[in-house]
Amino acid sequence: MKMKEIPGSVIAPQGFLAAGVFCDIKRLGTGKGSNKGKKRDLALILSEVPAVVAGMFTTSQVCAAPVKVSMPRASKGTAQAIVVNSGNANACTAAQGIRDAREMTDVVAKLFRISAEDVLVASTGRIGVTLPMANVKRGIRDAAALLNTFKENADHAAEAIMTSDTRPKQVAVEFKLGGKTVRIGGICKGAGMIQPGMSPTGARPAAVPGGKYQGLHATMLCFITTDAAIESKALKLALNEAVANSFNRITVDGDMSTNDTVIVLANGMAGNASITAGRRSDLAAFQAALNHVCLELAKMIVRDGEGVTRFVTVKVSGAKTFADADAAARAVANSSLVKTSWFGGDPNWGRILGALGYSAANILEEKIDVAYSAPAGKQLLFALKKGQPTKTSFKALCKMVAQKEFDLHIQLNLGKGSAVMYASDLTEEYVDFNKGDVSDPSSLGG
Amino acid sequence: MKMKEIPGSVIAPQGFLAAGVFCDIKRLGTGKGSNKGKKRDLALILSEVPAVVAGMFTTSQVCAAPVKVSMPRASKGTAQAIVVNSGNANACTAAQGIRDAREMTDVVAKLFRISAEDVLVASTGRIGVTLPMANVKRGIRDAAALLNTFKENADHAAEAIMTSDTRPKQVAVEFKLGGKTVRIGGICKGAGMIQPGMSPTGARPAAVPGGKYQGLHATMLCFITTDAAIESKALKLALNEAVANSFNRITVDGDMSTNDTVIVLANGMAGNASITAGRRSDLAAFQAALNHVCLELAKMIVRDGEGVTRFVTVKVSGAKTFADADAAARAVANSSLVKTSWFGGDPNWGRILGALGYSAANILEEKIDVAYSAPAGKQLLFALKKGQPTKTSFKALCKMVAQKEFDLHIQLNLGKGSAVMYASDLTEEYVDFNKGDVSDPSSLGG
Repeated sequence: MKMKEIPGSVIAPQGFLAAGVFCDIKRLGTGKGSNKGKKRDLALILSEVPAVVAGMFTTSQVCAAPVKVSMPRASKGTAQAIVVNSGNANACTAAQGIRDAREMTDVVAKLFRISAEDVLVASTGRIGVTLPMANVKRGIRDAAALLNTFKENADHAAEAIMTSDTRPKQVAVEFKLGGKTVRIGGICKGAGMIQPGMSPTGARPAAVPGGKYQGLHATMLCFITTDAAIESKALKLALNEAVANSFNRITVDGDMSTNDTVIVLANGMAGNASITAGRRSDLAAFQAALNHVCLELAKMIVRDGEGVTRFVTVKVSGAKTFADADAAARAVANSSLVKTSWFGGDPNWGRILGALGYSAANILEEKIDVAYSAPAGKQLLFALKKGQPTKTSFKALCKMVAQKEFDLHIQLNLGKGSAVMYASDLTEEYVDFNKGDVSDPSSLGG
Repeated sequence: MKMKEIPGSVIAPQGFLAAGVFCDIKRLGTGKGSNKGKKRDLALILSEVPAVVAGMFTTSQVCAAPVKVSMPRASKGTAQAIVVNSGNANACTAAQGIRDAREMTDVVAKLFRISAEDVLVASTGRIGVTLPMANVKRGIRDAAALLNTFKENADHAAEAIMTSDTRPKQVAVEFKLGGKTVRIGGICKGAGMIQPGMSPTGARPAAVPGGKYQGLHATMLCFITTDAAIESKALKLALNEAVANSFNRITVDGDMSTNDTVIVLANGMAGNASITAGRRSDLAAFQAALNHVCLELAKMIVRDGEGVTRFVTVKVSGAKTFADADAAARAVANSSLVKTSWFGGDPNWGRILGALGYSAANILEEKIDVAYSAPAGKQLLFALKKGQPTKTSFKALCKMVAQKEFDLHIQLNLGKGSAVMYASDLTEEYVDFNKGDVSDPSSLGG
């Protein structure tokens, strides 16, 4: 399938409008990552017509009010608007939090004369503080007045959802389906609390024995629009698969957030014959495009993670099962000792074996190969073969790990299970950023 | 029971001799934590008479050669000597590693005309490099010549097992049993790769669903001597219980090592009536003393962890089950975001709830109480009640978390399960220390 990247992210597909404004939600904030100055903090995305919707949400047992409000609305299958604020997560805010999240959607619904049930809401920022609703409502009205389809509208929306991100994250693609041009675009944010594990209902997938839940754990938010015509069930399946292979496979710090949310709206304005599970080639084309959008956005989150200097693709293969491969990849990707060695550009295979050893994956030390390559590279530089150091020079290994981006290949030689994790290093800047600023009470919470 | 701390650690009990020498094991080492200069790197502990032995070892699937050699020997029930080197873990060293570990015990056995089967061995340091056996053998002969019962002998042994530790770790206690004076003494080392999970056979205990294995995960080494007369089975049970409540409940960085080892030798020279499972009050007294020795040593490891500035006792209670309490305590104790907030002296309860939310423990946000106290303090300062912030001032909470040591109380209010973890913060110094020194090839490995 031919697919090309295009500008405009969420406003690239036909019939979508967006806006991002400043309404001073983190009023108390003077700390890092706050809306100091006038950084935008409220985004609105609207489809001109009702859209098919699918969502994936944090599986944390401490889930934020907007997640609780949006989950059932995504589940029912149609929606038309998404309202998002940064600077305040509206998490651990009890009944008032739920009322506030609902009110955000009510305000949007009234402005556009749609049902509040067709408005989804997401939040990111401090935990444990209720929203300054007067500001939020003013922000929503301002955003509604500015809604448009210019590229800068998408830029503003992408900025408005940022917290500790250093740059906005956007992507869009275009492809053909039965002669019609179909577009998918998305924006996302991340930076800290990043190891998402989302499911459509917040219910946890089966546990990987001994590991953290599979596909678990950021505050990461992602909003995707498409003008594809697609049936609800097909969209849900497609999003599930795309998230399983992207956002649910990244880790910055191994901490899952209370607010993780991915929402896709599909408004059908491309005019293609509606995609169903039965139309395999159309679904495959859509899936490939959605996978691309999600994976590119997910990688941007890791690359822009707090204090990150390395982007490492951890590829485990030859595991007995997928669960084993997943547990092995997550153990390596989340080991403080492995992550600090990456920061140091140190090809420390002892720590890699150490992490594999305590992981829940079945392994045999004497069967493990460890190699490095350039990103997506075919030429492997082996550090270990069958658990023993190769003759590759230490210098050559150091050179590999000194790259900003590289792939780490772990071959367990026990079976056919494989799994990938997109991981960052652990740096002094991460610690400095997250040690908090107790001179600023607003830093209380997440 | 009356029990008092006494000096001398491993030589405090009757009939034990010790020595620690420098034999230049980390010859290539110029990096941090190396035996730069002439830091002692080989320790020997000998009982004048054959002793009852029990051991607990790493449950990592990548377990070092000395662990493989010592495990069956500890299991058979009697031993007389322990030889330990630092600077080289003899891990991931294949068949040569096993031969070297055995040879270390052979050399000791010959010198003292005992069976090699009665000599246990442990190593800590770099992974993936074979031991410089000429140096090691010279070290063993030097140590054997210096073996004695002076307090400085114990000091030297405690120093010789150190790697990145900044200070030696020793303790000994004395108590009465049926009119006889019984002593237990121990030395240990830790610093990095610290979340031990040991079992007597290296076999993993039942997995905690969704968590890391229970009681899993340092290179920590601990050697305990006692002149108590105790039967093999009783000693094994007692060590199991003591380790379960001490070394297996600490974490510095959540990384379990390939070499974790605890060994206790009981030579019976106190002359008490042999302790058996049936002699309940004697066993209880011995258990209490052994618990004290293990817990004090375990806490020293956390306090002296790499870059550590905080010692936090995480106490979870009110969980549905012990497994839930354990999973909750480990999630909080290992969360990068919680640990960095401790470093910053930031009472960030949002991150604590976040970690509880993604843990495998069953929780209900609206039931959770979070409080602080001074170490072992009864007076609790509540940050959260029923999932909601209390009126405790932010300043008061900050003051609590600014202490070098404090207790964090998490009450889940769902049942009677409880668990404790002894944890450290995550600091820039930890990252700096562990980012490695690639100018020094000897830093390759663990």
